[in-house]
Amino acid sequence: MQSTTQDIEWMTRALRLAERGLYTTSPNPRVGCVIVKDGQCIGEGAHLKAGEPHAEVHALRVAGEQTRDATAYVTLEPCSHFGRTPPCADALVQAGVSRVVVAMQDPNPLVAGQGIARLKAQGIMVTVGVCEAQAGALNPGFIMRMTQQRPYVRLKVAASLDGRTALANGTSQWITSADARKDVHHWRAQSCAIMTGIGSVLQDDSSLTVRDVATTRQPLRVIVDSHLRIPVDARVLQHGHALVAYAHADAAKLDALQAQGVRLLHAPNAQGQVDILQVIQALAALPCNEVLIEAGATLNGAALQSGLVDELLLYYAPKLMGHAARGMFALPELSHMSEVRDLNITDVRHFGPDLRIRARLR
Amino acid sequence: MQSTTQDIEWMTRALRLAERGLYTTSPNPRVGCVIVKDGQCIGEGAHLKAGEPHAEVHALRVAGEQTRDATAYVTLEPCSHFGRTPPCADALVQAGVSRVVVAMQDPNPLVAGQGIARLKAQGIMVTVGVCEAQAGALNPGFIMRMTQQRPYVRLKVAASLDGRTALANGTSQWITSADARKDVHHWRAQSCAIMTGIGSVLQDDSSLTVRDVATTRQPLRVIVDSHLRIPVDARVLQHGHALVAYAHADAAKLDALQAQGVRLLHAPNAQGQVDILQVIQALAALPCNEVLIEAGATLNGAALQSGLVDELLLYYAPKLMGHAARGMFALPELSHMSEVRDLNITDVRHFGPDLRIRARLR
Repeated sequence: MQSTTQDIEWMTRALRLAERGLYTTSPNPRVGCVIVKDGQCIGEGAHLKAGEPHAEVHALRVAGEQTRDATAYVTLEPCSHFGRTPPCADALVQAGVSRVVVAMQDPNPLVAGQGIARLKAQGIMVTVGVCEAQAGALNPGFIMRMTQQRPYVRLKVAASLDGRTALANGTSQWITSADARKDVHHWRAQSCAIMTGIGSVLQDDSSLTVRDVATTRQPLRVIVDSHLRIPVDARVLQHGHALVAYAHADAAKLDALQAQGVRLLHAPNAQGQVDILQVIQALAALPCNEVLIEAGATLNGAALQSGLVDELLLYYAPKLMGHAARGMFALPELSHMSEVRDLNITDVRHFGPDLRIRARLR
Repeated sequence: MQSTTQDIEWMTRALRLAERGLYTTSPNPRVGCVIVKDGQCIGEGAHLKAGEPHAEVHALRVAGEQTRDATAYVTLEPCSHFGRTPPCADALVQAGVSRVVVAMQDPNPLVAGQGIARLKAQGIMVTVGVCEAQAGALNPGFIMRMTQQRPYVRLKVAASLDGRTALANGTSQWITSADARKDVHHWRAQSCAIMTGIGSVLQDDSSLTVRDVATTRQPLRVIVDSHLRIPVDARVLQHGHALVAYAHADAAKLDALQAQGVRLLHAPNAQGQVDILQVIQALAALPCNEVLIEAGATLNGAALQSGLVDELLLYYAPKLMGHAARGMFALPELSHMSEVRDLNITDVRHFGPDLRIRARLR
């Protein structure tokens, strides 16, 4: 059966519902579900938090007794396995729905088409691929972790129009407006981890918590600190849920950090620096779906070179700071234009006087 | 009499006509005129070239015998003085129009309301200020020269998203796409002069001519070259209509340049460099309405500091070049965020894969 305009409309509603879990479902995916009968929505729901019911269960509960021969719209393939909750595919079968419209197949190898197969085996009509791109965009980290065993990594930079993130003396508060900074909190809130470098910690002493948007969950704060220079009273360590990745051990500092509940990760590379790749892999294992890097030019450059950055969030304030000010990315000197890193600009938006450019690494 | 929706529509048409002179009217302003009778356009015209008829004359000629009691829409106050053509205010009176709608008063001190007064004195109804902002935007250079005796100065930079205009070795062809580079030719074509620095000439040897858009007029090419290092065979000198501003004389070089028809301007400042302010003033006297600076970080920074830059045209290619690459503006090192140069972003547009951000200096 082909998808219809109605299918797209209902699925769009299910996608909006899924967004309710944007800040809270990880490490699970954000999923929304709408149950429709005779052209009316009789139940809807979203997955909100790992361990709590899936979207389908919420929606079926609302629909109650009316689900026979209804159509269920789900933004992700209903699960087929027993996790912390029983399989949603079975719940839909038991509810007697006659059709299930799925935005995208679950990339989780434990599901990966089995949920759909289970529905079809029970004679339920299944349509897959309605609003697939939008559904994928809701869960870039979950998909990346399931398919490539690594998180989806965003890197945020706030800069002047001439690409400077701080004055030569390190001062940078504030380049961008309150509107732009609030948007950053939106991205922090949907991330499982915020990664920064020791240079930024020593310069700005930011807490890197989510503040400007409402959320019940704070991301893990990850500090890349090769020589364990972090002060134990650094603000980024004061709210718990922090991890310090280091290359050179210092027993006393390690003890002090551990006593504070800070997680420690020894991840040296051959150059005696922290190996970003190792850190990112460790974050995937925690598990982390989405990671946001908010750092200075050194870590920004290293992350970019590691090849693990998927997307840039570039905030530009209408300011000029001049060539003595600090740059955005420390990269090795290039001698040919062909070596330059290419991106695709995917979105441009105004935040107060500032611009945000989203770009994907090619 | 108040302006009406019809007034705005007809004036918008007159503004579109005025744009036909975008590349050619200087040092005169771009002006369009529409003659309307009984709700119909009976004549329209634009000023296309200095010395040729004004917009009103073109429009009245088209309208012929039907102009009695018609309404004339003009994007700039009709002139009241004998220049190279007789006063347009008189022509409108003779044509018997009963109403004249004017977008903006002529900033030319030789007119400055006298054209309007002349019409009113003859019993013609005059409405002033319809689409005034749009009319002003058509002639920023003419207005600036008339009111402040200096040209309107745009500064163009093509950069990567991390604000770099060339690799450390100077290579920069090409950072931006053909679409973005074509747009630059549009701005060159409406400029009276293109200003560059000797560093860019020695590095890129660009001709700085208008090529990608059709025009009958090439802007003056101005090279800021304190020590007269320019090779006599530099491409920028090969098309005639060039001016070299210098601080240190070199008799042989001066002779060679003069023999080639290059204009020379001795404009030293106290530091033995070319004084940008003096150059800009000389350009106003030529007269130049709009000047486009296309240079490297040194001249860009000096121009910015001179306080004479009105607008930035910033083209960003979706690329990252790293902190070793060359910056956009060489400015003195700042120590407080309050010293940072503030701008207003006025427009953002895509050109192929690139973005163009227009910004005004505050």
